Amino acid sequence: MTSLIFNTPLLTVFGLVTLALGLKALLLGAATAATRGRLKQFLNAEDAAWLKGAHVDPDPEAVARIGRAHRNDIENLVLFAIAGGLYVAVGASPLAGLVYCGLFLLARALHTFAYLTARPLLRRNTYTLGFLVIAVMSVHAAVALTVLHHD
Amino acid sequence: MTSLIFNTPLLTVFGLVTLALGLKALLLGAATAATRGRLKQFLNAEDAAWLKGAHVDPDPEAVARIGRAHRNDIENLVLFAIAGGLYVAVGASPLAGLVYCGLFLLARALHTFAYLTARPLLRRNTYTLGFLVIAVMSVHAAVALTVLHHD
Amino acid sequence: MTSLIFNTPLLTVFGLVTLALGLKALLLGAATAATRGRLKQFLNAEDAAWLKGAHVDPDPEAVARIGRAHRNDIENLVLFAIAGGLYVAVGASPLAGLVYCGLFLLARALHTFAYLTARPLLRRNTYTLGFLVIAVMSVHAAVALTVLHHD
Repeated sequence: MTSLIFNTPLLTVFGLVTLALGLKALLLGAATAATRGRLKQFLNAEDAAWLKGAHVDPDPEAVARIGRAHRNDIENLVLFAIAGGLYVAVGASPLAGLVYCGLFLLARALHTFAYLTARPLLRRNTYTLGFLVIAVMSVHAAVALTVLHHD
Repeated sequence: MTSLIFNTPLLTVFGLVTLALGLKALLLGAATAATRGRLKQFLNAEDAAWLKGAHVDPDPEAVARIGRAHRNDIENLVLFAIAGGLYVAVGASPLAGLVYCGLFLLARALHTFAYLTARPLLRRNTYTLGFLVIAVMSVHAAVALTVLHHD
Repeated sequence: MTSLIFNTPLLTVFGLVTLALGLKALLLGAATAATRGRLKQFLNAEDAAWLKGAHVDPDPEAVARIGRAHRNDIENLVLFAIAGGLYVAVGASPLAGLVYCGLFLLARALHTFAYLTARPLLRRNTYTLGFLVIAVMSVHAAVALTVLHHD
């Protein structure tokens, strides 16, 4: 049994990046609801009746696009939070951790911009960058977890 | 480098709330599968062949509604777990933390009830309450992470 | 206030299992994009224009199937990561924890295999095993959190 020691600068940066991306995802989720209200087109029959709009299925494209950006955000943020949480908990290299956090924040902020403004090349490249950060950080955390017992 | 100290009462309450909401989401996920079986309408062709039902796409409304409640649950629970995990790890105010946990549990339990019983006003208000708890708790955790180095 | 002590072998196994399943989910997510590209059928109009393919909605079945496997993975991995993270943080039984991690890895690896190869019985059984692991581990973590104050 060993007590884990956190490197607080990396915890702070990882925490701030994760919280910022969480708030972005939260806003995207709310934006799907707000856009349904603005277009008066609702996926739930009771909403259409209540707000005197149309009952549609599937969502109109404007709503579905924000929903896809939102879902893509959540799926990637979950994997980054898991990899990053383990990375910080196990005390792996702070410098590499800061690089991962910075690149992921950049990638995912630009991915949302690219999705909402329909820029396919930028969307693909930022998705790929986020993918690579999660993959490398996960392997790095796995190695650090494995060597933990040899220290 | 500093060792983090957890306030165990807040960790306990945050843990119990998160686990309870996780189990609720788990049950909603299973309920979509169970409802497909009860209606004998399946999204996968191999299920329809195996269980002698119809192959449908999209899901029937009863299944799709539970699926929407489930997805909304997961999306919000992820953001709450991230914000709350960082909040507890950084040792921010226990009293405010308990309030956030209580409000989020209330909001999300009622949100599921409102979704499954088609109450749009209650669903909107409980969604908004959960949204606000995540937003405020995230900002609070971010401030606590930022001031960590000035203690 | 008490300092939490981690059992590092369990943290290592939980971390490696969670990271491995995270990487699997990451690959499934990328596989939906790759399959859209291979079939030249795209959900976003700008992708169809850019890559000279068809603009379709919904996704073709081959893409939708990977997407369902991916979504099911993320939904279950989130709940396992929450339950397991709390379980490790609170220092519950290492032996039971290792069993949970082993069963969950087995269940979810086989679930993806069963989904992609359209084996409904194996898919149902592995989904159920993963469900049970999350449920039992969550209750176990909740009990351990509750008795924390009586130690």
